Amino acid sequence: MKLQLALDRLEVAEAIQLTKKVEDFIDWVEVGTSLIKEFGMRSVKEIKQAFPNKVIVADMKTIDNARYEFEMAFQAGADVVTVMGVSPIVTINACMEVAERSNKLVMLDLLNTSKEQLQELLKYKDAIFCVHVSKDEQEEFRAQNLGSRSGGLLIDSSLKQAVAGGITIDSLESLRKTLNPSVVIVGSAITKANNPSDVAAKFKQVVHKGNRVCQSSK
Amino acid sequence: MKLQLALDRLEVAEAIQLTKKVEDFIDWVEVGTSLIKEFGMRSVKEIKQAFPNKVIVADMKTIDNARYEFEMAFQAGADVVTVMGVSPIVTINACMEVAERSNKLVMLDLLNTSKEQLQELLKYKDAIFCVHVSKDEQEEFRAQNLGSRSGGLLIDSSLKQAVAGGITIDSLESLRKTLNPSVVIVGSAITKANNPSDVAAKFKQVVHKGNRVCQSSK
Repeated sequence: MKLQLALDRLEVAEAIQLTKKVEDFIDWVEVGTSLIKEFGMRSVKEIKQAFPNKVIVADMKTIDNARYEFEMAFQAGADVVTVMGVSPIVTINACMEVAERSNKLVMLDLLNTSKEQLQELLKYKDAIFCVHVSKDEQEEFRAQNLGSRSGGLLIDSSLKQAVAGGITIDSLESLRKTLNPSVVIVGSAITKANNPSDVAAKFKQVVHKGNRVCQSSK
Repeated sequence: MKLQLALDRLEVAEAIQLTKKVEDFIDWVEVGTSLIKEFGMRSVKEIKQAFPNKVIVADMKTIDNARYEFEMAFQAGADVVTVMGVSPIVTINACMEVAERSNKLVMLDLLNTSKEQLQELLKYKDAIFCVHVSKDEQEEFRAQNLGSRSGGLLIDSSLKQAVAGGITIDSLESLRKTLNPSVVIVGSAITKANNPSDVAAKFKQVVHKGNRVCQSSK
């Protein structure tokens, strides 16, 4: 199991500074959509430069213009790029094609994806399937239980799964028992902690009890 | 009917230079998603500064983190911001709320929205409903006919409608007869023309035969 740190609602320099504090405890670094839309590809470039040995996930949330956006993000230094599961299927095909050609990975963000759409997506065996409770849904429904929401969504355990959305150390313990994902995405539980490195160290402990490994091309 | 120029796959300076050539013929200026993801909010800010009297549409394609993204885009100078119709409904509610508070507009991008989702969206009477054939779908299915695809999608003619996706002068003529939208979004037909101002002038002629007016807060 890999621990992915999601960097959102921060300046690029702040994001780098924060990541330096916790880099020993995390595996993947996600440049959040909010950084990309505020600062553009500079956010991906500077974070990759600061952490050349980390797998960098660019949360592009592509939903159209797939080739252009994926090539742009990979060129900026991303190793994994996200596309929305609710996109037209031609868009997802294009993402898979660019990623394969670049020897990089696609993360399929399943936010608001219907069961029918998910069924169609299961053919993308090389993608990482990210079960995602959105920030807006977290804010609206405080007591969100990611484990129960996503339970049964993905049945094929040969697929690589990631989970995101308000994950805490407590919820991670139960997620490990149910979904046992390949990638656990943690944002504010670390980035907004009083002592980010302490919290990240605790996440690392729980994560490393897991045994499924998600290999990036890097 | 308003003519919206969509600026995509360009440097910010190029986009401004190009818009200057056609500004007499267009009404709204769209900062495309590709500019936002490549250059961040700088693209919206610089284009608004260059055209302070134009309505600026930021094609944010928000699908989560709605308050943050909408506030960011409005602060950068946008007058209209897009959200995906496939988003969770709490996300769209948040966009409507921020736009109302800011006295600005929401454009609902209906890309890949199901009939059931659309039904739920019809309550947003203040939004502009954008029927959208994606770039990726245009590339895959060259002979796309936007008029027939979107025909019957929106039945309530009291709603403000926009159309986007590979629109040419010929297809605009037929769109006027069928949908008669409030906003027509044209990108590469103008931006990639040998003589953008000639083509924009022709679009203006067709557009101004229309009589539905979509007022922005600006």
